[in-house]
Amino acid sequence: MCELLGMECNVPTDITFSFLGLSARGGRRGPHAHGWGLALYDGKVAHVFREPAPACVSPLASFVREHPIKTLLAIAHVRKKTRGKVSLANTHPFVRELWGKNFVFAHNGTVKNVSALALGGFRPMGQTDSEYAFCALLSALQHDFPTAPSRDQLAEAVAGHAGRIGRLGTFNMLLGDGEQLFARCATKLHHLVRKAPFRKATLADEDVSVDFAELTTPRDRVAVVATAPLTRDETWIAGQPDTLWVFRRGKLTHTLPS
Amino acid sequence: MCELLGMECNVPTDITFSFLGLSARGGRRGPHAHGWGLALYDGKVAHVFREPAPACVSPLASFVREHPIKTLLAIAHVRKKTRGKVSLANTHPFVRELWGKNFVFAHNGTVKNVSALALGGFRPMGQTDSEYAFCALLSALQHDFPTAPSRDQLAEAVAGHAGRIGRLGTFNMLLGDGEQLFARCATKLHHLVRKAPFRKATLADEDVSVDFAELTTPRDRVAVVATAPLTRDETWIAGQPDTLWVFRRGKLTHTLPS
Repeated sequence: MCELLGMECNVPTDITFSFLGLSARGGRRGPHAHGWGLALYDGKVAHVFREPAPACVSPLASFVREHPIKTLLAIAHVRKKTRGKVSLANTHPFVRELWGKNFVFAHNGTVKNVSALALGGFRPMGQTDSEYAFCALLSALQHDFPTAPSRDQLAEAVAGHAGRIGRLGTFNMLLGDGEQLFARCATKLHHLVRKAPFRKATLADEDVSVDFAELTTPRDRVAVVATAPLTRDETWIAGQPDTLWVFRRGKLTHTLPS
Repeated sequence: MCELLGMECNVPTDITFSFLGLSARGGRRGPHAHGWGLALYDGKVAHVFREPAPACVSPLASFVREHPIKTLLAIAHVRKKTRGKVSLANTHPFVRELWGKNFVFAHNGTVKNVSALALGGFRPMGQTDSEYAFCALLSALQHDFPTAPSRDQLAEAVAGHAGRIGRLGTFNMLLGDGEQLFARCATKLHHLVRKAPFRKATLADEDVSVDFAELTTPRDRVAVVATAPLTRDETWIAGQPDTLWVFRRGKLTHTLPS
């Protein structure tokens, strides 16, 4: 099993605070020591840092925390392997290009009999059920829409195909395309939206606090999704099984059956 | 215009020395200050560091130089923009997945009227002629071979399609798939193969030397390709226009018309 982190905002925001909390679970405070990854969108293109090593002791993870890159959409993951050896090819998040933009994907859970799913233009490079499921999901979207659909059409299609894949096992997942963050809850997923009035927040796993009031303007909205609440003094909303949250510009815009 | 660097070896090798030489041309010693990128293969998957900023002053480029990752195949690039703004989307090398492995591409030159080329399953995310040409090349390969061809078949097909694209302009390019490095010379490209007996080499752009005899075993072979010779005391072989070099396990195995 693994832990997921997603962030989607209406102003460029750095994910350092949340990523520090996730990194602590990557080997020191949690069992997720088999890899970490962080994808940061710059428009339609994702900058991806990944390493098949514990996040908490990784020089590259430290570098990323110490040199924050502001972004509107980020997806991160720490891995405890269930299927597939410890390797870069098996390290989330996974990235592909469809319709001229990067799609980024991370998964928590196990999808059984994943090779029963049809693949089209996207093939896995590693051995995980997660990457296979991602390739099946993108292949289905490419089959449905030879050219890019509207945002609402895409959200409906992701909910449908993710639900179909989810019935093969446990499919908590995050998917981004630079404009939208899709977050499917199978068993465990939480979110919150930080907005005015901003206040202080303290990590659940580290004695680290940030007063967001000092860092934000009243118009800012930052949605954060995580497997387990990352802070101890904010109210996180638990997902309902078999639903897909859709975030745009820091708002939860849809909750779809999936 | 830009500068290219490729390395292909029979044992995992770090590219720090050559990348230092290239980085010096990324803004300080050369005019290539609009971005840098380095792709390092780990099996079929490429780890890619890219930034739309000068390599010589980039903290991330320094990090990569100070934390060498050994690899069998690497492709690097420093950019002086001709088409497309300074952005991550326009920063080489470009990466896509085909047949379950990453293809990495970097280009020096300008391809005119690039939009006349047919695209299939790969679409550009940025505005450069380079990324468009890469997508056209991969689309043609995917059309020719629904499943992965042999290495020789792939080399012949790359030579053919790269030659066709090259007739639209200047197409010095590097393409890798984790197993082979293809290097097409249109106007300017050099290579050397370091092998026993190894000796000292000194960068052309920095007063930095390495004695490879201290770092290698007699069986090691390291092929290096660069736009301009990176060292002042080794013999670099200039490419002939409209030819494609193919490197496998540190050897130049084919020189094909292209």
